Amino acid sequence: MEDKLYQSIINVKVGKRTKLWRYVNLYGCTIGDDCMIGTYVEIQSGVTVGNKVRIQSHTFVCEGVTIEDNVFIGHGVMFINDKYPRACGDWKLLKTVIKKGASIGSNATILGGITIGEGALVGAGSVVTKDVPAYTVVAGNPAKFLKTIHI
Amino acid sequence: MEDKLYQSIINVKVGKRTKLWRYVNLYGCTIGDDCMIGTYVEIQSGVTVGNKVRIQSHTFVCEGVTIEDNVFIGHGVMFINDKYPRACGDWKLLKTVIKKGASIGSNATILGGITIGEGALVGAGSVVTKDVPAYTVVAGNPAKFLKTIHI
Amino acid sequence: MEDKLYQSIINVKVGKRTKLWRYVNLYGCTIGDDCMIGTYVEIQSGVTVGNKVRIQSHTFVCEGVTIEDNVFIGHGVMFINDKYPRACGDWKLLKTVIKKGASIGSNATILGGITIGEGALVGAGSVVTKDVPAYTVVAGNPAKFLKTIHI
Repeated sequence: MEDKLYQSIINVKVGKRTKLWRYVNLYGCTIGDDCMIGTYVEIQSGVTVGNKVRIQSHTFVCEGVTIEDNVFIGHGVMFINDKYPRACGDWKLLKTVIKKGASIGSNATILGGITIGEGALVGAGSVVTKDVPAYTVVAGNPAKFLKTIHI
Repeated sequence: MEDKLYQSIINVKVGKRTKLWRYVNLYGCTIGDDCMIGTYVEIQSGVTVGNKVRIQSHTFVCEGVTIEDNVFIGHGVMFINDKYPRACGDWKLLKTVIKKGASIGSNATILGGITIGEGALVGAGSVVTKDVPAYTVVAGNPAKFLKTIHI
Repeated sequence: MEDKLYQSIINVKVGKRTKLWRYVNLYGCTIGDDCMIGTYVEIQSGVTVGNKVRIQSHTFVCEGVTIEDNVFIGHGVMFINDKYPRACGDWKLLKTVIKKGASIGSNATILGGITIGEGALVGAGSVVTKDVPAYTVVAGNPAKFLKTIHI
């Protein structure tokens, strides 16, 4: 499959063996080695994506987000970087970090200023409103603690 | 950035200084001045969008929706215009109005026939099943009253 | 409207009178007669879609999903086929079936290994974590029984 079809990639640093699917819209971001970025994914300026990360289709990663190595981001996940969005006026950029080995289920919504801990798992369709500790599973709207992952 | 790349725009009236991002799919709608329409946004026939409106990436605005001035629509927001969707058969178009200055968080779902009041704020990931009064904050699935915004 | 613009269609069997919108990303799947596949829809390899099915914009249908005749899938619906997604390692493909005449509301999330019964209705924004019996309405996160549909 010739994947460059319909891609929009501007000022992006892409690592080795990383696969970008069709219709991606990437600008001003850095993506590591051995990643997979799915169809209809937008990644904004200043985002850093580590190595061996999978970001699935229909997901939006905003400015202010850092994604560490071995993270899985499902389909239709929306990141947020402002507290009270308005059409006009100033706003403060909130920073979010997804620590190494964490997984975020499809259609999840991640509010701004959140840290999702190492190896944590966010259930599909969750709305994450506060930090998620390492190696825990959360789910729901708002997302609540479900269990600890024993490693 | 040359933004016309990959755009599909058919029979659309677009105001002054309005910025349309790549991969938009717009047809038969009217968009005011000083708006921003994000990547992968579809806006259907008959929709009217006011001035200074921001509609973020991955959002779908269906026939029957009116968006007034200074509204903010987040990423991945889905509007609905039928009560019981079915693959076949007739259906009645429900009309939705987003009043001026309102904001809708990312991944929110707005059922058909809803009015979201002036300056109201819908939390990210909410499912809005009834009208939202002016200057109130709602959130959750289904969305419930959280607080009044003092202006 | 000339709909072939910007489409990516690889090894897909498409039935008669089926309409594919712009920006679809379809590969290795089979789609029946008289269907409508909306903008920004991705359908993966091995998926079978019956006749008279509507799949609305921004929806992702993964490998392992079977969609029977007369089904309605709303906008921004995400299907899932793994239990614990991780960036690396093996995983088991879970199979999901949407039975004939069922409807799934916009922004719903359907976990892997689910059967949605004949004529059932999944409310918009729901997260479906277990089977849905035929001719029932479910909604919420997680989706719960609301009522029986009398036919």
